[in-house]
Amino acid sequence: MTSHRKRFPQAIEFGHRVRARRHELGWSIETLADNSGLHWTYVGSVERGERNVALLNIVRLAAALQMDAAELVRGIIP
Amino acid sequence: MTSHRKRFPQAIEFGHRVRARRHELGWSIETLADNSGLHWTYVGSVERGERNVALLNIVRLAAALQMDAAELVRGIIP
Repeated sequence: MTSHRKRFPQAIEFGHRVRARRHELGWSIETLADNSGLHWTYVGSVERGERNVALLNIVRLAAALQMDAAELVRGIIP
Repeated sequence: MTSHRKRFPQAIEFGHRVRARRHELGWSIETLADNSGLHWTYVGSVERGERNVALLNIVRLAAALQMDAAELVRGIIP
């Protein structure tokens, strides 16, 4: 089934950064979900750019990915 | 009237950074609201740490404040 969530370019870029870093670590979505305390379906939707992720989840994802939250949002503009 | 919104340390830190930068620019909350396209009551609640601000509004606030979104979230941890 195809997702029909609205995708904003900013969320797509954010999701790409999460996925790229997860791949660098050699992790599955499930591993990132476990390490961040978020649900794997939510992490998948973040990576697809379907979520307007809020601050608390941004910092959870960054911490799990062993990076600074700054790197997930740097240069993203409205 | 006192606000009773739940305040997370991460949101409080984020709000302090928004307010500090707004003060650097010598702007009122209304000016920041106008420049970011957000409502002044919302901007005020962000500055008080009462909002778990999501990506699109983080980048709107940063752009209005003439800074990179990275600076609003750097070093904030879960």
